[in-house]
Amino acid sequence: MVRIDVALVPQEIEARNLNGITAIVIDVLRASTTIACAISNGCDEVIPTISVEEAVEISRAYARGDYLLCGERRGEKVEGFDLGNSPLEYTEDRVAGKKIIMTTTNGTGAIRAVKAADDVIVGSCWNLSAACERAVSLGKDILIVCAGEGRRFALEDAVCAGMMCERIASMVEADESDGCIAARRLYTVFRDNIEAALAGSEHARYLARIGFGDDVAAAAQVDRVSVVPVLHGGHIVRRAE
Amino acid sequence: MVRIDVALVPQEIEARNLNGITAIVIDVLRASTTIACAISNGCDEVIPTISVEEAVEISRAYARGDYLLCGERRGEKVEGFDLGNSPLEYTEDRVAGKKIIMTTTNGTGAIRAVKAADDVIVGSCWNLSAACERAVSLGKDILIVCAGEGRRFALEDAVCAGMMCERIASMVEADESDGCIAARRLYTVFRDNIEAALAGSEHARYLARIGFGDDVAAAAQVDRVSVVPVLHGGHIVRRAE
Repeated sequence: MVRIDVALVPQEIEARNLNGITAIVIDVLRASTTIACAISNGCDEVIPTISVEEAVEISRAYARGDYLLCGERRGEKVEGFDLGNSPLEYTEDRVAGKKIIMTTTNGTGAIRAVKAADDVIVGSCWNLSAACERAVSLGKDILIVCAGEGRRFALEDAVCAGMMCERIASMVEADESDGCIAARRLYTVFRDNIEAALAGSEHARYLARIGFGDDVAAAAQVDRVSVVPVLHGGHIVRRAE
Repeated sequence: MVRIDVALVPQEIEARNLNGITAIVIDVLRASTTIACAISNGCDEVIPTISVEEAVEISRAYARGDYLLCGERRGEKVEGFDLGNSPLEYTEDRVAGKKIIMTTTNGTGAIRAVKAADDVIVGSCWNLSAACERAVSLGKDILIVCAGEGRRFALEDAVCAGMMCERIASMVEADESDGCIAARRLYTVFRDNIEAALAGSEHARYLARIGFGDDVAAAAQVDRVSVVPVLHGGHIVRRAE
């Protein structure tokens, strides 16, 4: 029996012991989608950072040609950075072999916040099956953490979490938390149109207003890649297949 | 246009400005249901407290015959207190004319946490219509706060919040937050069997195990009373009708 739990906002993990847990962190719009894309397109690693200052400080340890400074504030690329937080920017020709030093409003912080878990997987619609299969294969209780938006609930993350719960519950006998039950039921409401579910969220509407509507449609694609980004020594790397 | 927002866990309100807001606090299992019952049965007021010690300290200001010390820890009546947190205990013969000094694990703290809101209404299934009608009549943006369980998401509160969102959205043109959209969709899944939805929650299953299964069935009753408990000077009183 595997316990499946969902933290619908990241603050819920403050009440959780992460010992013995496999964590899957979701920030569908857009950090975890972008990370799946970057890792899939051959970046060396993604270094999640909390602040712009921390990202810049870390970059000083590397030769200029070896890294890209990446991330957003209010959805827009940070001034002076190489890339923003749009998955579509992270093409193979740009990211292959590079270290991605990244700071985003919600996702990178949520990933860091669960580092005490036994294993941390970065999940999204893009790598849904791969992330779920890896989590189940580890044989431990699973905690899906929704990064949310500004420490508030974000619909897109909950729908993706529900899709993962549905998938995981189809693979193992599960003991479901209230958060898991709710996310799964929510997903079933939207299952025939994930893109519309995402597009109806507040952050998707904001992104559309500032010109990133294509990212929302892109983020709704399920199983576009099969990579499993995992946290290793504080850096996100591609799990050896 | 009224903004309808739902905090699915109480920590979400830390990111919120409560100025200009009507807050409805929900703790279906059981504090907000119990408060609706106590107020309906003629108690003088309910004084929400955070700790057992604070409740005892406050009681010292009153003559012994004027108050009841009430509340729970781990669902059980606090040792030495007059009443626990079971709505069925708060009969008219016990509570009429008394001050109810109450401490519960989640509900009383959540009520205190929103005291900066313009108006605070204590809501539950029991007084669903009355609470919603009062909130709408105030004409301000509405924030429904789910007390949750141990600072985690609680299914029963979210379902009740969704029922309120559905009701409010039928009365006014609404701008819905992600939390509102999710709660409302969740409610629609369970609308034909609210009692089963509540009974499936983790806290309901816990209450059933320790002998309070009847409270769960009772808490699922919609519009059993028409009182609107409101916060006034830190105390919960019956709104003049």
